[in-house]
Amino acid sequence: MTAATTETTTQAPILPSYIAGQWWTPKTPKKIAEVHDASTGEAVCRISTDGLDVAGAVEYGRIVGQNNLGKLTFHQRALLLKQLALYLGEHKEPLYELSDKTGATRKDHLIDVDGGIGTLFAYSSKGRKELPNSNVVIDGEVEQLSRDGSFIGEHIYTRLTGVAVQINAFNFPVWGMLEKFAPSFIAGVPTIVKPASQTAYVTEACVRIMVDSGLLPEGSIQLISGSARDLLDHLDYRDHVAFTGSADTAKLLRSHKNVQEEGVRFTAETDSLNAAILGPDAGPETPEFEAFIKAVVQEVTAKAGQKCTAIRRTIVPSEHVEAVVDALRQRVESRAVLGDPRDESTTVGALASKDQQAEVASAVQRLVDAGGELCFGGPQAGTGSADAEKGAFFPVTTLKFSDAHTPEVHEVEAFGPVTSVLGYADIDDAVELAALGGGSLVATVCTHDPEIAGAFVRGIGSHHGRVHLLDRDDAKTSTGHGSPLPHLVHGGPGRAGGGEELGGMRGVKHYMQRTAIQGTPDLLTGITGVWHRGAKANTATPETVASGEAVHPFRKPLSELKIGDQFASGLREVRLEDIDAFAESTGDTFYAHTDEESATANPFFPRRVAHGYLLVSWAAGLFVEPAPGPVLANTGLENLSFMTPVTYDDSIRVTLTAKQITPRETDDYGEVRWDAVLHNQNDEIVATYDVLTRVAKETPDWAS
Amino acid sequence: MTAATTETTTQAPILPSYIAGQWWTPKTPKKIAEVHDASTGEAVCRISTDGLDVAGAVEYGRIVGQNNLGKLTFHQRALLLKQLALYLGEHKEPLYELSDKTGATRKDHLIDVDGGIGTLFAYSSKGRKELPNSNVVIDGEVEQLSRDGSFIGEHIYTRLTGVAVQINAFNFPVWGMLEKFAPSFIAGVPTIVKPASQTAYVTEACVRIMVDSGLLPEGSIQLISGSARDLLDHLDYRDHVAFTGSADTAKLLRSHKNVQEEGVRFTAETDSLNAAILGPDAGPETPEFEAFIKAVVQEVTAKAGQKCTAIRRTIVPSEHVEAVVDALRQRVESRAVLGDPRDESTTVGALASKDQQAEVASAVQRLVDAGGELCFGGPQAGTGSADAEKGAFFPVTTLKFSDAHTPEVHEVEAFGPVTSVLGYADIDDAVELAALGGGSLVATVCTHDPEIAGAFVRGIGSHHGRVHLLDRDDAKTSTGHGSPLPHLVHGGPGRAGGGEELGGMRGVKHYMQRTAIQGTPDLLTGITGVWHRGAKANTATPETVASGEAVHPFRKPLSELKIGDQFASGLREVRLEDIDAFAESTGDTFYAHTDEESATANPFFPRRVAHGYLLVSWAAGLFVEPAPGPVLANTGLENLSFMTPVTYDDSIRVTLTAKQITPRETDDYGEVRWDAVLHNQNDEIVATYDVLTRVAKETPDWAS
Repeated sequence: MTAATTETTTQAPILPSYIAGQWWTPKTPKKIAEVHDASTGEAVCRISTDGLDVAGAVEYGRIVGQNNLGKLTFHQRALLLKQLALYLGEHKEPLYELSDKTGATRKDHLIDVDGGIGTLFAYSSKGRKELPNSNVVIDGEVEQLSRDGSFIGEHIYTRLTGVAVQINAFNFPVWGMLEKFAPSFIAGVPTIVKPASQTAYVTEACVRIMVDSGLLPEGSIQLISGSARDLLDHLDYRDHVAFTGSADTAKLLRSHKNVQEEGVRFTAETDSLNAAILGPDAGPETPEFEAFIKAVVQEVTAKAGQKCTAIRRTIVPSEHVEAVVDALRQRVESRAVLGDPRDESTTVGALASKDQQAEVASAVQRLVDAGGELCFGGPQAGTGSADAEKGAFFPVTTLKFSDAHTPEVHEVEAFGPVTSVLGYADIDDAVELAALGGGSLVATVCTHDPEIAGAFVRGIGSHHGRVHLLDRDDAKTSTGHGSPLPHLVHGGPGRAGGGEELGGMRGVKHYMQRTAIQGTPDLLTGITGVWHRGAKANTATPETVASGEAVHPFRKPLSELKIGDQFASGLREVRLEDIDAFAESTGDTFYAHTDEESATANPFFPRRVAHGYLLVSWAAGLFVEPAPGPVLANTGLENLSFMTPVTYDDSIRVTLTAKQITPRETDDYGEVRWDAVLHNQNDEIVATYDVLTRVAKETPDWAS
Repeated sequence: MTAATTETTTQAPILPSYIAGQWWTPKTPKKIAEVHDASTGEAVCRISTDGLDVAGAVEYGRIVGQNNLGKLTFHQRALLLKQLALYLGEHKEPLYELSDKTGATRKDHLIDVDGGIGTLFAYSSKGRKELPNSNVVIDGEVEQLSRDGSFIGEHIYTRLTGVAVQINAFNFPVWGMLEKFAPSFIAGVPTIVKPASQTAYVTEACVRIMVDSGLLPEGSIQLISGSARDLLDHLDYRDHVAFTGSADTAKLLRSHKNVQEEGVRFTAETDSLNAAILGPDAGPETPEFEAFIKAVVQEVTAKAGQKCTAIRRTIVPSEHVEAVVDALRQRVESRAVLGDPRDESTTVGALASKDQQAEVASAVQRLVDAGGELCFGGPQAGTGSADAEKGAFFPVTTLKFSDAHTPEVHEVEAFGPVTSVLGYADIDDAVELAALGGGSLVATVCTHDPEIAGAFVRGIGSHHGRVHLLDRDDAKTSTGHGSPLPHLVHGGPGRAGGGEELGGMRGVKHYMQRTAIQGTPDLLTGITGVWHRGAKANTATPETVASGEAVHPFRKPLSELKIGDQFASGLREVRLEDIDAFAESTGDTFYAHTDEESATANPFFPRRVAHGYLLVSWAAGLFVEPAPGPVLANTGLENLSFMTPVTYDDSIRVTLTAKQITPRETDDYGEVRWDAVLHNQNDEIVATYDVLTRVAKETPDWAS
């Protein structure tokens, strides 16, 4: 009894999972693992999911999560992300303290915790700016499939009807979750998070804050703190699995029957042997050389080099290999201090675990065996005051290869503070060396010459998910080689896993299905909630407005305006003196408007023609309802295309139709996009465009 | 000796492959198969690739094909497709005759041969309209990554550096090849075609015509007429495999080590159990009902039902099951005449082979065993005058199921003229039934009610690659349930293979890699060939133009104009009387321009402001060079955004910069896109937009 009691009190707690809206811990786990502090070796928690109802979690997500998220629009979900980001920002301090145990430094935590929160903010903002306030995204232009316009086609995105499973790596327990959560949440797909065991306690703490915020609709998120067990057995083509981690695990997951045969949408982001290339123009003494050295050291030391984007291959002109190695050594010696992240002088933390430490040592040995020469660092080098027996410390290490084409240096990854310097002969050789990585997440190209940049990127582009151009002009403002940004895609071909995440709304669409729809303008209007040219309209004319039979759409606030509300003007004749007057008042005396002979000689005009700007200005005069009302401002104009020239004695009329209505979640107005079509007196289309306006939800007092 | 001679003379010829620029036939094949006429059973050809150098073909494509295609731009390759389409159109007759042997009718040939040629035309046209005349496609907007604009990001597509392998199905030997060839060719990726053996002789004939045309750069296309052998062993992440065929073969290919581990880009389009849904509003006596019956019979009989898009599940309101079955029976009885396609009375041809005939019979039996009731047709029914012993004929067959949720009807595919009628209770039930197909290429929804259409498509959208809406208004103009169009994506989730083809330029991008690029405006300009705001410019001003120091960019024909050529105007003051005069002349008397009190009350304006249309009209007056010259026309304006209001006594100036230059391949002019930025007297940005113009390659005589 006494012994049992002692055992209970000394054992670390089991990390809870969050399943079907409840925190859950196994009652009598058989299989259990212990997680340790990376620097001190102390136990942090124990991990087990023995007995967890995985099938129930999937079912719960598909039913409860889908149902609750489906009640909201893209904008409503995006706004919740902002509120969640604010809440996390106010409650993030405990995450830093927990993160100390992972071996990461405070600077590293910023990347993980604040980077994750920043991703939520970015997605919230972009989601509301770039998506409609509905549940269907239109992709691209309408295609005319019949001459008479009765049969048209276009593409839409609707959300997947399953769950978004994330299987994450240990190195970014917060960012790694949030960068996947943000896009899937906006799409409306519920998430199941499965963090890596080594750092799952940080993820658990973050999920707990998210749940406690009370902001997330029930079913939006579930957490499996430990083995995912038979999770993939329960997934099919409705579900999405986003994996981050080793190529070996990616292979295992990808070969699962349900990925192979049942169409589970599987995307992987795996470590790759990323390159940094020093341009032939960027020798020592150039500002680019200095920026390059800083970037390499930054990427090798941040997170102790445990970043999937870290620079593993430093590819430089052969004649600069020694200078690069020397500069790297100097910068590392003067700046890299290994140690416990809780020690303020530490600039490089520990690896995530003793296992990782052993793996990195073994990888470095393989590189040496293949012909690599240790320039500095290596398993036998010192770790300063950091105790590499107790903590998972590893010295910052640089190798060089006399044969840059040695296969191992392009294949063996030491997932720690390790890089290899390779010399290249010319740009083609450098491109070939970069490509030998077999597909990478990111490469830095350091050059100040746009032509060299073009040659490199055209050469290495299709082998990379991202290319970072570094020179004197962006060295200070660059967000860095190693930082995936919410705006830009993250992922890469081949060795990098073949997947794609983030990239703004591109990332949201990964959680949606693109579907072609074909039918009449009326039916496509019904499906998308966006008015299509040719669909039924509720038409007001100058006459019906004057008689009171109809209301001009400009008099309707958002609460009354419907898509298809339309105003069709009468004709107005363009006289030669109007063209002349417009030319004079605007100063636009271009020959097509002022010189009869040249205008007639021009292949596109019958004789002098009205300015395009005159036509759209007059159109505004024809469709506008001038009195104060709910229309607040014209904010822009898109896709203006002039189809038929208008010469003097022609007439024009305009048809303006409410096409898309986007009320704002946080303002008392919204955006209305109007379809504008100009016709001439022969009913030929003169011009088409979209007019963008802001319209009040209710007519303001000052405008009533 | 005599026997051997006899054997040689009676044996059908071996179908040649086209490898590394040479026609190739095995010398002493060990493994060889014979292909038979589907209607008569006569031998057509023999198939073998014993000894074919597959690795050499891949290497040849990657080197010779890539090199030759890389010398051309998107427009040049697109133009070649048009010329190829014209050539094929002139030489297509032999393809019809060969196609007769496949069992397909002349009407079916139109879908295959003319449909394939039409796809080339469509891609040629869209490629030149929608892609730049270069080798880099920009995807989406520039992202500001630093406040000062020195570090920006965006996405580009560049072509894959490997080969595009097509593994095709037997049912469309021409279209199936050309619909994949067109987008990969425009992307600049060389193709290796592997047709299905049963109809490979039609593909071979088409490739021969294409090669004989002399239009295709060497290495653009290779043909493997028979087993692809170890082709996948030689592919990696640089290559793309587009498979069309059975789910089983897709599974086999997808499980290949190089797909699993080496990142081969694999996409599959497999047969699915496509549904046609009769809306609850579309009962008998409605025009929709009639259109629905026609569509189902069309899809069941065309190509003898051997279409991956054919309607396998006819989902109708329970109360209309009998009416639907009766109407289908009547239409089939009155129209379906089975027979040899060379017989003019034939409307339904043979299946592709005796094997297919046996497979369809077996699938129908499985449906019957699962509870399906044969309404008409079935293996025992007659085939009229068509000899089902000699030819692979199969009667048009309809089943019904008392339990619409019977699993087999949603899983077992009879790849022939077979459909099952299922009754549904309400829209939710119909959506669920459609989804039971586990992901499909296409569904038809037949309704005249936009709200019902919306409910259906939001429900079934993410289970489908395409949804076809049918009603009285598009019944005549619809291109049909079963026809993939070059403009729209083809493919679907889950059972349909999870792939995506076609869809206009979406299809081209499947043969390219999307890469995020980050750097200075100068470097991104160098990479993309498109001028980025903030990059270096070659600036002319009114003063330098007047003094002769600089040339106004409007005076430069395409042969002289460079991106970055810029004109920066002086300031022009906006006076209150200018706003009044503009309001009066255009008729745009909107209160923000004419009513001081309301304009001031408006939350976005300080007081009365200038019309947006005034600003862009004046900007034209400020940047234009009026004398006749190479600028031919202003064809449009895009992405106009008003950022800062301009009130009276403010001034504006404009900076106009050549952003993108797109010379036309077939005209003596091209498109120039100009970046326009309006500033006020405080250097605040007032508005930004793109001006689209046509500019002559050389200044025309009449304008010199």
